[in-house]
Order: sequence, then C-alpha cells, then structure tokens
Amino acid sequence: MKGKFITFEGSEGCGKSTQSRMLYEYLKKKNPKAVYLREPGATKISEKIRDILLDAKNDGMLAECEMLLYMAARSQIVGEIIRPELKKGTIVICDRFLDSTIAYQGYGLGMSIDFIKAVGKFATFGINPDLTIFLDLPVGKGLLHRNGCKDRIEKRSLAYHLRVRNGYLKLAGQEPERIKVIKVEEDKYKTQEKIRDLVKRYAV
Amino acid sequence: MKGKFITFEGSEGCGKSTQSRMLYEYLKKKNPKAVYLREPGATKISEKIRDILLDAKNDGMLAECEMLLYMAARSQIVGEIIRPELKKGTIVICDRFLDSTIAYQGYGLGMSIDFIKAVGKFATFGINPDLTIFLDLPVGKGLLHRNGCKDRIEKRSLAYHLRVRNGYLKLAGQEPERIKVIKVEEDKYKTQEKIRDLVKRYAV
Repeated sequence: MKGKFITFEGSEGCGKSTQSRMLYEYLKKKNPKAVYLREPGATKISEKIRDILLDAKNDGMLAECEMLLYMAARSQIVGEIIRPELKKGTIVICDRFLDSTIAYQGYGLGMSIDFIKAVGKFATFGINPDLTIFLDLPVGKGLLHRNGCKDRIEKRSLAYHLRVRNGYLKLAGQEPERIKVIKVEEDKYKTQEKIRDLVKRYAV
Repeated sequence: MKGKFITFEGSEGCGKSTQSRMLYEYLKKKNPKAVYLREPGATKISEKIRDILLDAKNDGMLAECEMLLYMAARSQIVGEIIRPELKKGTIVICDRFLDSTIAYQGYGLGMSIDFIKAVGKFATFGINPDLTIFLDLPVGKGLLHRNGCKDRIEKRSLAYHLRVRNGYLKLAGQEPERIKVIKVEEDKYKTQEKIRDLVKRYAV
C-alpha cells in the first residue's frame, strides 16, 4: 500500500481522541490527503453498529455478540474507507483498531486471542497498521477523567480495565516494531510532542 | 440438552415463516413450553441488528460486515434464549439459523464455508439443530411471491438466489440425517402435513 496507517490505542480517559486529533491536524498541514477516523464508526453502517455497542441500555449483550459487532463495524470501515485510501497514498489515522478487540474482549473478557486474531484478519482484509501508538496511563487515573455518563464498556470493573491495560502492554511486547508505548504526560502538548517525534521516525 | 431444536431453512418466498408458525401452533398444543423464534432477531439487541441488515438503504454493506452481523445477532439469540430454553427441555423452533449464513453468504456470495463454520461454532456455542427442515421451491417461483417491497437480500440477482438454493441442497446432501428437504406444495396444508410427519419421527 502507498499510504501510511497509524492507529491509536489506550485505556479509557487516556486522552486518545484528543491526541489522535492533534496529530491529524499537524499531519494535515504537511499532507492535505490525511484522513481521521474513529472506531467503531466512521461509515453510515458502522455508526449504527456503534450505537448498539455503546448504548448502556444494552447491558444484556453477550461477549460473543460484542466481539462480532466490533468486527462487523471494522470490516465496513476497512473495506469502505481505509483500504481504498491507503491504496491512493493517504495517511490514515484511526482512533482504535483490531488491538482494541484483542485487549478488551480477549485479555479483558477472556476470549480466545487466536480466534479474535483469525476473525480480525478476515475483518481487516489482512491490513495491519504501520504504526500503533499505545497511550499508557495508570488505570484508576484514566477512569477518574470520566466524570459524567459512562458507556457500556466504561462501566466495567477496575479489575477488567487492569486486564485490558496489561493486555495492551503484552501486545506491545510481542510487536515492539509496530506498537509503541507512550506514557501520558500531565501536559497534553508534551505527550503530543513525543507522538510527533515518533511519527517522524516513520517518515510520515 | 433436554429440549429439541428444530430450524427452518429455505429460499425467499418458500412459505418458511407460515410453515414454521403452523408447526409451532401444532406443537404448542402438545407441549405448552414450545418457543418460536425468527432469525435474525428475537432479542432486543438482535432486532436492532436485524434492522441494520435488512434496511434497503444500507446497500453499501460489504459481505464481510453482513456475515459478521448475522453471526452477532445469532450469538445473542443462542446465549439469551435458545441455550437456556433447550436446557430446560423446551422445544425451540427457529425460522433460519446457521445454515442460512452458509447458504447465503457462503454459497451465495462466495465466502469461505470453512471460515463461516468456524465463526458459526463460536456464535452458536456449538449448538446444532436436532432437525432442520429445508423447504424447497424453484427459485423464480419463490421470488415472484414477493410482489411488494423487497429487502436488501431479496433484491439480489436470480443467479445469486440459484447459488443459495444449490448450496442448501449441497448441505442437505452432506448432512442427510439432520437436514430434510421438503418440496413445497401448492396447498400449504399439504406441505404442513409432510412437515408434521417428519417431526413425529423425531419423537417431538
């Protein structure tokens, strides 16, 4: 693929959305073809799936259903936007991707990692990010940032969110070339600076 | 499992919904604990997924997304209703199940049958129907019955619906003990009679 695919991962309240948008605004000045996406969502169909996934009223949703819905939304965003954009040479920045499902449903809910990876390969058409930035923040701190209404996932226990974070760190250990861990700073501009330094090394 | 799980399969316009409901009304008299379900749907979450799947406005939906959405809806109906009911000894009648995905997305859209079966095992928690009734009707005839608005799947080409039917027949050939082919009669009561004869042999 001609383009570059950069994904952001992280636990709740780590500032992932802010940081990924800041990077997008920065890269857009250098390359107007940059595209910013969030998962699950971004396409008409994926946004409808997102509504089902995050609606706190759907608290009876089974882990199996949850995992398959994330993958369904993902296949649509990859086929409809990410794959064609990368072919055109676009820089695609995505807030969350397959690693989220491995961390949240695999490590967090105890689902088979191998099976998630197999379904993930199908749902992503085999497309892997060139660079994944994992924004790391101690779990309790991040959840405190969410003062208002919590969605269905954010409402889960502290133990769950600890498993998710440890899962991410394990993934980063397995794929150190692709997944870079960045410690979240108090000052968001300092965090952004570290991200930009990293991205430069990927010649974006 | 103590209960019995009977599924109905068939092409568009074969009278599947009518026939499965007729069988349900008949069995309910003998066993008041019988349950009637339709797929995709039946649970609050699965019905929301159904709306996305069948909405003709979602014509840009990719085959991968479609397959995963059917599986997501299925995992919810199995975990929330079918599995607990079968454990209680209930007769569960379901209008469509995993064979539909193999026929429509596998044979119809050319997706890997082995992969669909692997995801299907996950989504159904390994639960197989005790009996599957495939209502067979020549393809053109069935589609003619749909005079009004067609949904996203019904709108597909005749060649597609032919592949689906042939796929069903292939499945029935592979699992003759479970999948029984019943030719649809002009008179719906005659078709129903054949179905009841078959069901009796399964000691329901």
